[in-house]
Amino acid sequence: MFPNARLRVLVTDPWFTKVITTLIVINALVLGAETSPELVASFGPVLHAVDRVALVVFVVELILRFGAYGTSFFRDPWNWFDTVVVAITLVPAGSGAFSVMRALRVIRVLRLVSVVPSMRRVVAALLSALPGMASITALLTLVLYVSGIIATKLFSDVAPKHFGDLGDSLFTLFQVMTGDAWSDVSRAVMEQQPYAWVFFIGFLVVTSFTVLNLFIAVAVSAMENQVGEERAERDREEMEVTMDVLAEIRMLRAEVQAMRETTAN
Amino acid sequence: MFPNARLRVLVTDPWFTKVITTLIVINALVLGAETSPELVASFGPVLHAVDRVALVVFVVELILRFGAYGTSFFRDPWNWFDTVVVAITLVPAGSGAFSVMRALRVIRVLRLVSVVPSMRRVVAALLSALPGMASITALLTLVLYVSGIIATKLFSDVAPKHFGDLGDSLFTLFQVMTGDAWSDVSRAVMEQQPYAWVFFIGFLVVTSFTVLNLFIAVAVSAMENQVGEERAERDREEMEVTMDVLAEIRMLRAEVQAMRETTAN
Amino acid sequence: MFPNARLRVLVTDPWFTKVITTLIVINALVLGAETSPELVASFGPVLHAVDRVALVVFVVELILRFGAYGTSFFRDPWNWFDTVVVAITLVPAGSGAFSVMRALRVIRVLRLVSVVPSMRRVVAALLSALPGMASITALLTLVLYVSGIIATKLFSDVAPKHFGDLGDSLFTLFQVMTGDAWSDVSRAVMEQQPYAWVFFIGFLVVTSFTVLNLFIAVAVSAMENQVGEERAERDREEMEVTMDVLAEIRMLRAEVQAMRETTAN
Amino acid sequence: MFPNARLRVLVTDPWFTKVITTLIVINALVLGAETSPELVASFGPVLHAVDRVALVVFVVELILRFGAYGTSFFRDPWNWFDTVVVAITLVPAGSGAFSVMRALRVIRVLRLVSVVPSMRRVVAALLSALPGMASITALLTLVLYVSGIIATKLFSDVAPKHFGDLGDSLFTLFQVMTGDAWSDVSRAVMEQQPYAWVFFIGFLVVTSFTVLNLFIAVAVSAMENQVGEERAERDREEMEVTMDVLAEIRMLRAEVQAMRETTAN
Repeated sequence: MFPNARLRVLVTDPWFTKVITTLIVINALVLGAETSPELVASFGPVLHAVDRVALVVFVVELILRFGAYGTSFFRDPWNWFDTVVVAITLVPAGSGAFSVMRALRVIRVLRLVSVVPSMRRVVAALLSALPGMASITALLTLVLYVSGIIATKLFSDVAPKHFGDLGDSLFTLFQVMTGDAWSDVSRAVMEQQPYAWVFFIGFLVVTSFTVLNLFIAVAVSAMENQVGEERAERDREEMEVTMDVLAEIRMLRAEVQAMRETTAN
Repeated sequence: MFPNARLRVLVTDPWFTKVITTLIVINALVLGAETSPELVASFGPVLHAVDRVALVVFVVELILRFGAYGTSFFRDPWNWFDTVVVAITLVPAGSGAFSVMRALRVIRVLRLVSVVPSMRRVVAALLSALPGMASITALLTLVLYVSGIIATKLFSDVAPKHFGDLGDSLFTLFQVMTGDAWSDVSRAVMEQQPYAWVFFIGFLVVTSFTVLNLFIAVAVSAMENQVGEERAERDREEMEVTMDVLAEIRMLRAEVQAMRETTAN
Repeated sequence: MFPNARLRVLVTDPWFTKVITTLIVINALVLGAETSPELVASFGPVLHAVDRVALVVFVVELILRFGAYGTSFFRDPWNWFDTVVVAITLVPAGSGAFSVMRALRVIRVLRLVSVVPSMRRVVAALLSALPGMASITALLTLVLYVSGIIATKLFSDVAPKHFGDLGDSLFTLFQVMTGDAWSDVSRAVMEQQPYAWVFFIGFLVVTSFTVLNLFIAVAVSAMENQVGEERAERDREEMEVTMDVLAEIRMLRAEVQAMRETTAN
Repeated sequence: MFPNARLRVLVTDPWFTKVITTLIVINALVLGAETSPELVASFGPVLHAVDRVALVVFVVELILRFGAYGTSFFRDPWNWFDTVVVAITLVPAGSGAFSVMRALRVIRVLRLVSVVPSMRRVVAALLSALPGMASITALLTLVLYVSGIIATKLFSDVAPKHFGDLGDSLFTLFQVMTGDAWSDVSRAVMEQQPYAWVFFIGFLVVTSFTVLNLFIAVAVSAMENQVGEERAERDREEMEVTMDVLAEIRMLRAEVQAMRETTAN
């Protein structure tokens, strides 16, 4: 029964996509409105109804798309994304530990990315930059971890708020790495340990330099991809023309050789 | 009657442009001086008079330029810019809601951009970078919006100052995105919800990475435009020479073939 | 009498440069030591003596160099730099308004730049980036000035500390542009004027984007210079070879043509 | 006896590297756990035992590797790194001045870099960017030093916390250079010396511009290395083909010349 060709005609229809896109946008606005107590007080039932309808439509859409493609549905990672996002929404909104889950239901708005092709491409481009960052990110994590342990050992008594335990230290060092209020942190420690500036400035210089190189790696790879492709094509064209020239000359030489033999005889 | 060729001679005269440019600069200084109560107390009438004269000249200039070009005046977007800027200035400076309008009258100084060719070019270059940023800016806005709703739901009770409603949350998250005092915001929330660092660091990493890629997209496109053009021209020249070589060889081959036929006979 | 060839031999001697360089470094350390009351209390006379000797040597060196090159001495802008720096040092160290002048005497240490060739090159490279930044810097200044007037008009009553007069506003907006504590400034204003975020976020986005493009302009031009030169040379070589090919073919064709005529006869 | 071929077989065995890598990771986790008083209270002896075993294994590994390569062991700078890191760990963990040494024992986790080839490459790439930064870093240091002396002379009475002595000034100016809370520092000074903004904004602009150029220098050199190599190879290929063409044509011309001689006779 699945995959079903008629369903495929339906789900690939531009109208189908337009309806879904519009519904996601409306749903996004409704979810925004639901954060306002005044709007909920006035239009609460309407907002909830729209939300519920949107959810039902998303589930139906997923089922239709699954029906259209059968098991090959799961070969496209964007379909996985859609399924997970809708699944999160279906988790019963309990209390306590589930309040985070309830808040996360909003990420169904991110389905806009999987529905609009130009945003899909942007996200794909962003993700394609990740592998090239792996080694340098690992190095940065290692430096952060080692510095975190050192900072905890050295400063936990002096500045317990910032370096009380390894978790605090890692958070604080991440903050220092982003350059946010690092001088306050450093000055607080330096009041007791005057030479702590060596650690902070060293850490800042090393991580900034590493992050800079992380950025450059991403930039260079983006440039290679975009500029390089264009260039490579032009180079290929040029090469083809040069190969034509070479072939032409070889044929000419054969011609002349043949002629020489004719003349010699 | 319009367009009028004599007027065109007048408005394209370098002296005309010089007078207008000088007047804009003088007007800019006067508008600056008008922010100082002391200067207004001493020279108020003079300043206002200069301001008024400048305004009249700008209106006359616009009418002359319109007269010179007729309806084709509105084909140049810079003329639209000039017209809007002068129109804002003419809005009666009422009280209350109009105080913003009165403050905005200052933007007539930006006419310097439309009058000085090198600044026009810079602005045109800046604007030309915008289309390439559209998709990634849309993605960033979407991430900001979704994160804003999540943050409002999770943190509105804990940190009402920063996350009280959706507007507060969006402003705060924009602040976090720029890296300004993000650790203060995060620490305030983490006092009550220790795991909030996941949200803040996740948000910071994702948006920084996206903004970085936005920057790279702009940089790559600028590089393509500037370096690429130059390169493309050189490549074209090279290609032409190679084509010459090919043509030359083909003619040579024709020559040899002709000769072979001569010899054969 | 001037220029004097013997003096030129002296001042271009590597030993001469080494002595001067060493003296600048010693002078730099002495000037640093003079900021410490303890060191001045203990070694004050020695430090002052070294400082005075260094100054005398610098003056003598300048006179010798002037003697060596005559009026062409002033054709090299670095010589102007050296002369101005030494002249500042000679200004009598009065009290009051001259205390800044006295502090500025330290910039004679910057002579290290004019003496060490590799640092000269770096500074020359930095300066060569300036012309390409002129237009965009002018635009940024204009935006800052206009925004400063608007901010003064709108916020001077609300936040007199940050926007009291045009000078305050320009300083505060420069601060916002660098992203330092901009949210504090903005929040202080927004308490009274809730819509002020439009101004601050607008200003931040426009100036960041402009500064980004300023950076890109510098980067692209640096890249063009460094990568481009190398490329251009390789391209020139390639072109030469292709021209050789073309010449070779044309000679060949002449040869063949000559032969045809021979054969035809 | 040394170098020993059998030992070399052992230490280059993939299993050997895997065991060492795993041990470093376990040791890293144990060192992290040791920062938590609760974990030390519960599992203290186990953690210390694992730490001690890891240390013994590292020493044995070093001896084996030295045995395998003999004196050529010290030709690889990574081996120096390993030796120093392990040596630091062996320093007796005394009290007082040695507490820093004890904290530094954690850097043995950085051996992960020397063991994992991809991280070695990243670090090597980072280090290769350093020489190109030397001149501009020296310039930056010089500017910082001179500004530090000037700031100490001008502001030590006004803001003793930030500019009390040369050390304070250098730290504060480094902070200003990173853009962290520079406006607070500047405003504190400007309360007494209103014209201090000239110094701070001048310093910020000059150092930002220099740092920007430092970044660009690194980026350009990274790009040259990565993009350039690829390009250079393609250019070389192209050149080879063009040389083939030239050779081909020359042979052809020789052929024709030979033929002409034949015909002429």
